[in-house]
Amino acid sequence: MPELRKDPVLGRWVIISVERGKRPTDFVSPSQKKKGGFCPFCPGNEYTTPPEILAFRRDGSEPNTPGWSLRVMPNKFPALQMDGMLNKKGEGIYDKMNGVGAHEVIVETPDHNLSLATMPQSAFEDTLWAYYKRLTELKKDTRIKHVLIFKNEGEAAGASLEHSHTQLIALPIVPRTVKDEIQGAKKHYELRERCLFCDIVYQELSDGRRVVCENENYIAIAPFAPRSPFETWILPKTHESAFTHRNNSFAELAELFQKVLKQLDKILDAPAYNFMLHTSPFNDEQNEYYHWHIEVMPKLTKIAGFEWGSGFYINPTPPEEAARFMREAKI
Amino acid sequence: MPELRKDPVLGRWVIISVERGKRPTDFVSPSQKKKGGFCPFCPGNEYTTPPEILAFRRDGSEPNTPGWSLRVMPNKFPALQMDGMLNKKGEGIYDKMNGVGAHEVIVETPDHNLSLATMPQSAFEDTLWAYYKRLTELKKDTRIKHVLIFKNEGEAAGASLEHSHTQLIALPIVPRTVKDEIQGAKKHYELRERCLFCDIVYQELSDGRRVVCENENYIAIAPFAPRSPFETWILPKTHESAFTHRNNSFAELAELFQKVLKQLDKILDAPAYNFMLHTSPFNDEQNEYYHWHIEVMPKLTKIAGFEWGSGFYINPTPPEEAARFMREAKI
Repeated sequence: MPELRKDPVLGRWVIISVERGKRPTDFVSPSQKKKGGFCPFCPGNEYTTPPEILAFRRDGSEPNTPGWSLRVMPNKFPALQMDGMLNKKGEGIYDKMNGVGAHEVIVETPDHNLSLATMPQSAFEDTLWAYYKRLTELKKDTRIKHVLIFKNEGEAAGASLEHSHTQLIALPIVPRTVKDEIQGAKKHYELRERCLFCDIVYQELSDGRRVVCENENYIAIAPFAPRSPFETWILPKTHESAFTHRNNSFAELAELFQKVLKQLDKILDAPAYNFMLHTSPFNDEQNEYYHWHIEVMPKLTKIAGFEWGSGFYINPTPPEEAARFMREAKI
Repeated sequence: MPELRKDPVLGRWVIISVERGKRPTDFVSPSQKKKGGFCPFCPGNEYTTPPEILAFRRDGSEPNTPGWSLRVMPNKFPALQMDGMLNKKGEGIYDKMNGVGAHEVIVETPDHNLSLATMPQSAFEDTLWAYYKRLTELKKDTRIKHVLIFKNEGEAAGASLEHSHTQLIALPIVPRTVKDEIQGAKKHYELRERCLFCDIVYQELSDGRRVVCENENYIAIAPFAPRSPFETWILPKTHESAFTHRNNSFAELAELFQKVLKQLDKILDAPAYNFMLHTSPFNDEQNEYYHWHIEVMPKLTKIAGFEWGSGFYINPTPPEEAARFMREAKI
């Protein structure tokens, strides 16, 4: 069973993932990603993954066989596991609990050679529906307090398999970064009685310099203080506290989100990147202070001693310039 | 002039470092570190760096010429610059200020082929004295609120030059991670009237499983909730709030610190690593709740979407096992 441990100084949680247990020699020669080798996510290889949780099949094909356009299954080497109780315990001044939670993989396309940037827009829209379906399903388990949906694209961004996929980790606690964002947003709300993210959208639309692209209901911006060059946030223009409280379709979001990824691919030659979906925790999904959004971070700089030690980031590309390069990308 | 910008949601500061200004094409082909090429840190090449701030010369040689055993100079591409005023400003809902501060390089040895792990112990001791001297000197500038000393060893850990060196960034604000650590330590002190780090040292010494090595006055431990495999903390055993408030020599610390680096080199085949020195901020150097320490983090895993989005870390190596491997290393 994985273990969740809390750092007593910072209150930061760490998952000690024994399923992935590593001895020193496992780190000495970094594993090379096999290009063109066997792919467990390609159609025909369904038997090599844990049984699917969800799949979109328009041809009525059987579960765990080819015929799907999108497929969701548990991660074969899960960071957290969905059985048992939390069993919270102290160990002197330290706190720990069992690593209860879910770790799933969303394979967005059967085509090994497509990415989120290059797949048909309808497949991107289906991917967003899959996020929605998994979030609403996992919400029913009362042990789960929060779900983080994220993507590691490219080896430099942490992907261990080449075939395009998103991951999801369902957690028994609201993670620190989400808590900190909510706290910051709440402070602003208490002071001004307005949502901080709505204020950001308003100021960015008036200013214009950091706007990457927009459509009727969504906007993509280079944030004012980006951690990495070309970091881009995607937000609904009007207030929405949770991704799962949407009542319109995902077509418009798919269009804008994919445009951002196409722009990054164009100007940075298909960079490695991460994105994270930040949404209100399950126990407070309808609120006036937090605003769901997606943070896209190309992997262009290294996190080094200064960043680890200070929590500061050094960014060599002003966001105003990054946004201009992205706006001018011919896609 | 570099600019410091604050993220309005998380309060996280970012240095927009125009001196290092990067266009998209600068990221497309990652720069390769030249092995065996020209080295600005080697003796005879002093003219290629900014003039030295401090050097240890036992032979009475002239500044900026060979003959030194340790040399400190400003970073040629500084993230912050030491002229002008902070000029704090708002921009609508955003906050920014001039990037006033210092960014220095401490070249620990004239020998291109030595590392902190392999240099003579006396050279390691001199390195610690150089940290001490720069900290006490920079404290005199009232614009400087905090100094972070850190090392990036190896390209994977962010080093752009091969010749062993430490860096120092002097900041006009206390950085977030240090503030958060102090806040956590203060909370513990308010509750128990004891230093949290002293309690950690006490518990680790009684438990023993996470002790890496120790001598009379210092201890190295694998922390209870490490962010990365083989993360190691070095602390004085009795309470010391600031690195600069030491009154004994650095010999004992050099011995233990170097032993940790030798152990890591041995079991992980000279891994890339970062270390950071955390000490009390200048305006509160003598206190009962914070305890200076060094955090050593081998660069073995990647920071990916989950870590960025949650502030959690996934660690495949339990610290009890990491400490045992290090204790058993034949160095």
